[in-house]
Amino acid sequence: MGTKRDDNPISLRPIGTVESSLTDPATAPKQGYEGSPDAWLVFDPAVAQGLQDLRAGEQIIVLTWLDRASRDVLKVHPRDDLSIPEHGVFSTRSSDRPNPVGLHLVEILEIKGLRIQVRNLEALDGTPIIDVKPPLHGVPDN
Amino acid sequence: MGTKRDDNPISLRPIGTVESSLTDPATAPKQGYEGSPDAWLVFDPAVAQGLQDLRAGEQIIVLTWLDRASRDVLKVHPRDDLSIPEHGVFSTRSSDRPNPVGLHLVEILEIKGLRIQVRNLEALDGTPIIDVKPPLHGVPDN
Repeated sequence: MGTKRDDNPISLRPIGTVESSLTDPATAPKQGYEGSPDAWLVFDPAVAQGLQDLRAGEQIIVLTWLDRASRDVLKVHPRDDLSIPEHGVFSTRSSDRPNPVGLHLVEILEIKGLRIQVRNLEALDGTPIIDVKPPLHGVPDN
Repeated sequence: MGTKRDDNPISLRPIGTVESSLTDPATAPKQGYEGSPDAWLVFDPAVAQGLQDLRAGEQIIVLTWLDRASRDVLKVHPRDDLSIPEHGVFSTRSSDRPNPVGLHLVEILEIKGLRIQVRNLEALDGTPIIDVKPPLHGVPDN
């Protein structure tokens, strides 16, 4: 068992990029459902086969790399509200965190080849996409 | 907008490691609720401040780097069942995918400093942890 840090950096390769009208981190919504625009996920031709069973109307989780985040932040005021005491980042959805991976639960609106339009994505224009997955579900018995 | 691949590799730094009795990928459960054991998340002292508001009884999403996965896979038989036609990996939870980030929705059982015990984690012993987040929630109006 080890908890070694930095010994073996792990390398992500973007599989695509977000195309969005959101360009300013200061005014972008903090969560997808807070007035985010529809946006396009534009995928690399190299991963086309991986996309083939996605369908309009489905929900997906898009994983992004929040490339404009600060990685040396461990405590934040949730929602940048200074009246709320600082929280450890792992209890928050802050984009500032050691590994700023964004999780976005979105609905597919339209698929045009390597371009997939989704509803309510709060990621900024140009954000790298690193993965797409089916929605999480909890324990069936719960 | 570009979809360039490999130009700017993104480097993840593990923030901890999974300690689990699961060591064999061939027999490990495919989803957390399918008979996974309780496991410990063992964090790096460098991220201690980020953990300070996590509490026993809460649900969290643990993001891991599935370091034993194949990254050149774009189509899989879901659940390794050859009777099911191959699907594009982005429609599946396969650990084999271009960026094998694991998402695990788990409940915190106990916190002992840098060690957090969680219920039902299907990640293998030694798997690097890259992030911890609150659970995703969908659109409130839906």
